[in-house]
Amino acid sequence: MSIIKEITTHIRSRKYSAQQVVSHYLDMIRQCDPPMNSVTRLLNDRALQAAAEVDHLIAQGKDPGVLAGVPFGVKDLFDLQGEVTTAGSKLLSKNQPAKQDAEIIRKLCEAGAIPVATLNMDEFAYGFVTDNAHHGMTHNPHDYSRFAGGSSGGSAASVGGGLLPFALGSDTNGSIRVPASLCGVWGIRPTYGSLSMQGVFPFADSFDTIGPFCQTIEDLKLIYDVISGDEYTSSSPVTPSELRIAQLGGWFEKDVDDDILQTIQEIMTLFGKQKKIELPNIKQVRTASYLMTASEGGKLHLPFLKKSPMEYDPATRDRLMAGALLPVSSYLKAKEIQYWFQQYMAQIFKEYDVLIAPAVGSVAPEIDNPVVFVDGKPQSARVHLGIYTQPLSMSQCPVLSVPIYRKNKLPIGLQLIAKPHHEDLLFSIGAVLEQKNIAKASIIERNHMN
Amino acid sequence: MSIIKEITTHIRSRKYSAQQVVSHYLDMIRQCDPPMNSVTRLLNDRALQAAAEVDHLIAQGKDPGVLAGVPFGVKDLFDLQGEVTTAGSKLLSKNQPAKQDAEIIRKLCEAGAIPVATLNMDEFAYGFVTDNAHHGMTHNPHDYSRFAGGSSGGSAASVGGGLLPFALGSDTNGSIRVPASLCGVWGIRPTYGSLSMQGVFPFADSFDTIGPFCQTIEDLKLIYDVISGDEYTSSSPVTPSELRIAQLGGWFEKDVDDDILQTIQEIMTLFGKQKKIELPNIKQVRTASYLMTASEGGKLHLPFLKKSPMEYDPATRDRLMAGALLPVSSYLKAKEIQYWFQQYMAQIFKEYDVLIAPAVGSVAPEIDNPVVFVDGKPQSARVHLGIYTQPLSMSQCPVLSVPIYRKNKLPIGLQLIAKPHHEDLLFSIGAVLEQKNIAKASIIERNHMN
Repeated sequence: MSIIKEITTHIRSRKYSAQQVVSHYLDMIRQCDPPMNSVTRLLNDRALQAAAEVDHLIAQGKDPGVLAGVPFGVKDLFDLQGEVTTAGSKLLSKNQPAKQDAEIIRKLCEAGAIPVATLNMDEFAYGFVTDNAHHGMTHNPHDYSRFAGGSSGGSAASVGGGLLPFALGSDTNGSIRVPASLCGVWGIRPTYGSLSMQGVFPFADSFDTIGPFCQTIEDLKLIYDVISGDEYTSSSPVTPSELRIAQLGGWFEKDVDDDILQTIQEIMTLFGKQKKIELPNIKQVRTASYLMTASEGGKLHLPFLKKSPMEYDPATRDRLMAGALLPVSSYLKAKEIQYWFQQYMAQIFKEYDVLIAPAVGSVAPEIDNPVVFVDGKPQSARVHLGIYTQPLSMSQCPVLSVPIYRKNKLPIGLQLIAKPHHEDLLFSIGAVLEQKNIAKASIIERNHMN
Repeated sequence: MSIIKEITTHIRSRKYSAQQVVSHYLDMIRQCDPPMNSVTRLLNDRALQAAAEVDHLIAQGKDPGVLAGVPFGVKDLFDLQGEVTTAGSKLLSKNQPAKQDAEIIRKLCEAGAIPVATLNMDEFAYGFVTDNAHHGMTHNPHDYSRFAGGSSGGSAASVGGGLLPFALGSDTNGSIRVPASLCGVWGIRPTYGSLSMQGVFPFADSFDTIGPFCQTIEDLKLIYDVISGDEYTSSSPVTPSELRIAQLGGWFEKDVDDDILQTIQEIMTLFGKQKKIELPNIKQVRTASYLMTASEGGKLHLPFLKKSPMEYDPATRDRLMAGALLPVSSYLKAKEIQYWFQQYMAQIFKEYDVLIAPAVGSVAPEIDNPVVFVDGKPQSARVHLGIYTQPLSMSQCPVLSVPIYRKNKLPIGLQLIAKPHHEDLLFSIGAVLEQKNIAKASIIERNHMN
């Protein structure tokens, strides 16, 4: 099922014009976003002009592209021509507007998609809750009293809230997977280094990736194919009994709600497997990733921290300053752990095709009680919501964030991990899970012009 | 001309047995090395046993390998089965003996070469003069009152001193090129990452390379071909007029003796070129390399520095401790400079095939006056002899160290730089320079059994 194809079909058949569609989405965001606060800017002029161009191409009988007229939103760290890329900060808001679109945005626009909004995020992507000191908190579309997750919280909430067919985010330590899970949408952290970061404001070079949020797995694959330059094809079918799948135990079971573990069990049963493996030293791997992120982020920000410390969110500032001052020997030790972990994972993927683990340990935490449990103890959600995503960023592996829908319950999310450059396998498994009604996005129903 | 082929020809033709050759070299080292102090251990038993095996193969009419019976020495940081790898330190001298040869040693032994000695070095390879707190100073074979250079000083001095046909060393910031130049022998720093470091005690991961010292360019190519696994072939001829060669100006001319610059001029004229280019930001590039070396070395040694600080040479200890404690932001800035420099050099090599620069600014400094000039001011030779080699380690480029022979003068050395994996071009140009009598090793004549 593809929400996006539904839109392009209507536009191509001229049931609706692209201008009508774009106007509809802009109006819907204006009307419905305020309680969520997922959007920071609407790109009215650009969006309506682009829509007019799509309509013009269609009128002329020319090909408007596979994403003709589809509105989307972008986390506010992608360059958009003529807009200031703020990365959710006060500091960058005084910068000159971007001279051109980020490369990934350009690819989407070439395929006919239309950026209509920039989306809220943790300042400089440093956080897991999208609590932005300048733009405010983004609320979960399924329960406004709860976090949307972060740092790409605006992206996940706008898609889960039914305000956009798809959105772009970035994932350093889990910033796609955490909000995708808490908002109940599909997301993917692609293979590290596989997509262009040109025109994307960086955070931690060793981990930064970008990826889409979508309402269905078919849409996710479609957008991924466009931005990765892959030929668009249907997912090749997976034969469940032939798939070598293993559940991650140990670290990835601790502090995890029972119903999440039960869902994983259900999937293992579907694939006829009961294999559970434990990755060693995950605590050290996570510590190393934490330290590398602080160091690389700190290095990036040091000149600005020296010049304009008061323009930072205090929580961001203190972590970046501490990171910049860490002794290099700790950083190099962490890099050594990363190298070891990547070698270890390469061995694991000789025995298994795919691994499954929770993306979060529970449903979205309440904003008034901003904690998650680590080793059985309550800890800051902003810092620790990524305990299951962060260690996996230390591998270069692609990770699919799978939304689990439970009636009358808040969504949760799982991670499916494959070896580098095997995104296609993840899409195929995601399609099986969606088809079996195990995985399903939770989307707030709106008036969709249909 | 090949000293090595002369030896193997004699052994294959049974003019001398390998045992006679090895015994001869062992005797010569015992007799002649004391004033140089290039050798730290003789490998009598292993060497004589290996020689007997070569003789046995020859007696049976079997192929003893392209290096049949050729004695060589190794810097004391390569694993040799049954020997403790000390890296010139007191600290490691209590370690267990190595269980197997380093991979490069294994390749040489498979080709019939015979390790007969371990060679002196700066402790942990951290220095440019081979002044070892535990084994003493290595003296220049051409003037015992002068430095041999370092850190692979024992390797260069033993070859220049006529005690060995070839030797192995390592080059992090110039540890092959500096002593090769001061002792007047051929040496090469191969493309970073191209040769196996398995069984080699590391220093700074971003720069460590290993390579041979030889008496002729033909020998250097022969040994390189064996350790790199390349097919052994003659150097393809270079047409001087077609070669796109440029001299490095700016940093690489400052503090350099006139006669070294004149030699470079002579080579440029030989190739019919007058092109001089200036690489930008070389001071920053060198600073970055200095900082990365201290950081990576410091990280490596930190556990031992904490446990046994007094077992280090004080000069080494202080630099490593300072390195380990540097803030990570400085290290990451240095890595950024390295990345920029590598990209810059890649552009340069679109316009040029090879670059030429001095390897040292003068002949070997006197041990009693251990200084070199930097910005016109005298500075510690131990720290600064590598001012022309160190920046080039920041590229991944192979660098040939070319010995310049001047009658009644001490040797000097030049660097020929090519783009990564183009060692063959360097060997070809070296052969031209040797044939034209511009480049020639300075070797102390000994009784060579011929």
